[in-house]
Amino acid sequence: MNKEGILLIVSGPSAVGKGTVVKRAMSLAQERGLPIVLSISMTSRPAKANEKEGSDYFFVSRDEFETAIANNGLIEYNEYNGNYYGTKREFVEDCLEKGQDVILEIDVNGGKQVTDQYKNAVTVFIMPPSLKDLETRIRLRNRDNEDEIIARLATGRKEIAGCGWYDYIIVNNIIEEAAESLLSVIEAEKHKASRNINMIDEVLGDE
Amino acid sequence: MNKEGILLIVSGPSAVGKGTVVKRAMSLAQERGLPIVLSISMTSRPAKANEKEGSDYFFVSRDEFETAIANNGLIEYNEYNGNYYGTKREFVEDCLEKGQDVILEIDVNGGKQVTDQYKNAVTVFIMPPSLKDLETRIRLRNRDNEDEIIARLATGRKEIAGCGWYDYIIVNNIIEEAAESLLSVIEAEKHKASRNINMIDEVLGDE
Repeated sequence: MNKEGILLIVSGPSAVGKGTVVKRAMSLAQERGLPIVLSISMTSRPAKANEKEGSDYFFVSRDEFETAIANNGLIEYNEYNGNYYGTKREFVEDCLEKGQDVILEIDVNGGKQVTDQYKNAVTVFIMPPSLKDLETRIRLRNRDNEDEIIARLATGRKEIAGCGWYDYIIVNNIIEEAAESLLSVIEAEKHKASRNINMIDEVLGDE
Repeated sequence: MNKEGILLIVSGPSAVGKGTVVKRAMSLAQERGLPIVLSISMTSRPAKANEKEGSDYFFVSRDEFETAIANNGLIEYNEYNGNYYGTKREFVEDCLEKGQDVILEIDVNGGKQVTDQYKNAVTVFIMPPSLKDLETRIRLRNRDNEDEIIARLATGRKEIAGCGWYDYIIVNNIIEEAAESLLSVIEAEKHKASRNINMIDEVLGDE
């Protein structure tokens, strides 16, 4: 049987609540003893006061980040506001090899970089119930000025319009339901015939 | 949003325990209020003493069955030992239209007939943990003579060897786990992007 874990990419527009859904799914997974791990991003941004090394991010210098890029040590990365953010290749591949499922909560651009390299990766787009709802969520976070809100909404709109390439779409209406759906996707994908072709020979060959 | 239900075909070798897995999945679905129904087959075989019309089978005469065939009233049928068994089209299509998911527990041959007509149908093959285990299950049922056991195993072997075309393979090792996996497949399939393409326009168009 193919014991390799599932690489699950979770994307969605800014403020859709994908972090909350993923966190809830991770806590349900832990309760149920499911072998799911959340990939921790690496960043060249300095840690904020409440952030912890290795649980919020792996914090590195700009030089270290660029060395990792040069060494093909990242499966995806992006630069925002002068800071790098990326996903460590070694961490992801070690987990998958051990049979652990890995959730990557990354943006649409990062998701595309990963699926180009990992053809078996599973992609999930977290969808707001409506654009109006997305706007409300952005405003409730109270982080952005009006121009930033308009820019975020415009980007969100583009991401939603282009989300047809994802394998799955999960509406984040009720967090608990969205988290359960995410776990169902992982469970179902483990049973895909295409991931279990070796099993046929194993069952037939055991006589 | 596309509210059409999922048509789930569950097949597997004789004695693999697919009926037990499906029954357990149905009872979990009922507990959780999930809109899943089990399709009841129609047969021209006379009812046995403990069988109930409409819950075990729809019992009809041979003539009525052949009229149903002629009227395209069945989505699949087969003849065993001189008796017809089949699935009523109207029942299945009514349920799907109402947004109910329909489980068809049918043989490999029937499964192929259905997928030819319903391209969105989802197919699940219930796999024994091993051929040895399948043989044990056949013997424990204590229904067959030695020749019949050998014939059942030979058919099972062929069905397992050819099961690569199914969408999913679920090993029936622990019934509870197999039943949960079946429900996860239905849940995950509801979120397939290909089934939710209309949702994109709906979310974007609601401003």
